[in-house]
Amino acid sequence: MWEVMLPQDFSKLEVIGEGKTKIVRRMENPDLVLLEFKDAITALDGEKKDTLTGKGHINARISSFLFEFLSKEGVPTHYVSFIEPNYMVVRRLKMLPVEIVCRNIAAGSFTKKYPVKAGSRLKYPVVEYYLKDDLRHDPMMNEDHIVVLGILPSIEEVKEIKELTLKVNKSLSNFLDSKGITLVDFKLEFGKDKDGKICIGDEINGDSMRLWDKETGRVLDKDVYRQGKKLSEVLETYRECYKRIIGEEPKV
Amino acid sequence: MWEVMLPQDFSKLEVIGEGKTKIVRRMENPDLVLLEFKDAITALDGEKKDTLTGKGHINARISSFLFEFLSKEGVPTHYVSFIEPNYMVVRRLKMLPVEIVCRNIAAGSFTKKYPVKAGSRLKYPVVEYYLKDDLRHDPMMNEDHIVVLGILPSIEEVKEIKELTLKVNKSLSNFLDSKGITLVDFKLEFGKDKDGKICIGDEINGDSMRLWDKETGRVLDKDVYRQGKKLSEVLETYRECYKRIIGEEPKV
Repeated sequence: MWEVMLPQDFSKLEVIGEGKTKIVRRMENPDLVLLEFKDAITALDGEKKDTLTGKGHINARISSFLFEFLSKEGVPTHYVSFIEPNYMVVRRLKMLPVEIVCRNIAAGSFTKKYPVKAGSRLKYPVVEYYLKDDLRHDPMMNEDHIVVLGILPSIEEVKEIKELTLKVNKSLSNFLDSKGITLVDFKLEFGKDKDGKICIGDEINGDSMRLWDKETGRVLDKDVYRQGKKLSEVLETYRECYKRIIGEEPKV
Repeated sequence: MWEVMLPQDFSKLEVIGEGKTKIVRRMENPDLVLLEFKDAITALDGEKKDTLTGKGHINARISSFLFEFLSKEGVPTHYVSFIEPNYMVVRRLKMLPVEIVCRNIAAGSFTKKYPVKAGSRLKYPVVEYYLKDDLRHDPMMNEDHIVVLGILPSIEEVKEIKELTLKVNKSLSNFLDSKGITLVDFKLEFGKDKDGKICIGDEINGDSMRLWDKETGRVLDKDVYRQGKKLSEVLETYRECYKRIIGEEPKV
């Protein structure tokens, strides 16, 4: 059904977008785009920046694996296929300029912003919305803001995104729990496909989730980099995350 | 039903709280407290500060008048009675540490935070919640935050506050419109009475509302002070606000 390309052709594909950790390339089929996961790692709004050889592969593979898992759970996503070592073919979405954060345990900015103990489990999962707007430092929004700012036409679509996020939280939490991992919090981005259907886009991996070992509390995500750990230790963390989720050694 | 006291006795009443613009005094009846409105005016988180003779009277009277109006509209409030010149007897509430803001038109911080044109009418009224926490600079919350932070026990009570706020918005907007005033936005604070019932507390006046003349757009609220206008002009604005709402000249 979908076109297949050989990796060596990819560099010829026109770049239509580039972020800190991913390059978006145009594909022949106008309904698809190619996501290339870079070996870059960044933190502090891009102020801290390094290269971590193999991270692109690890994150592309974990994202693909988790998108496949979520598709089987009935969650609409942009995912089409994984191409070794660091590519993901996805359906083209019109992305919403919103980051949706779901929190099970108080961590990160949440504990700085509110009077709550870091590491405490919340009474129930909380969904937050942030406007993607670098100049305005990604201000938090509530559900009504999303409608009055014209990001979505109705509160019903906001609720749909919230319900999908909570469904992802439930599915991912259960899956990760079976791998000995606590899903602390995560970020999603949504978009609409050509039929106007709301789907999950972007990526799901150790850059977009906080993951703690269930027993020891060991951090298995990008927080080790934010904390300023050695790059070798950061890479080892990404490798461990891969091994736990995929069930095999990463090819790096 | 309620005790009546002579103004000269008030200074003997124990002070049980004091803010930038109000003093709270204990009354003989333990279910009541006396709010004394000061002539102080402040802005920029208290950095800017002046005395405006007569403001205490104006704001106590406008608050009393609007609370009476809202009570008649079926909105539960803490209001009991007005005492000349600058006192309000209210039922004692256990206040929630939340400021609830309702916006009809984009103004103030909203236009700095989000990409929206100042002065544009929003698609529908938006309700926002801010944690009252000076050290944390009053962070914005969404409805779930209010529950997981333990401020209210259930999302149903949050919805109750939201519904009451929207009801106040409708009633006040209609009333003010009949006085030639556009209600741009306003702030409410809620508390629970001794029976656990959610009621509006604090004050409603030109310090807590943005009010624009319907025809000319003239500002009739504290924004003239925030804008750095002369104190005589600021007082004239408060007097005009009083005249429009109460329908007579203030006694200052």
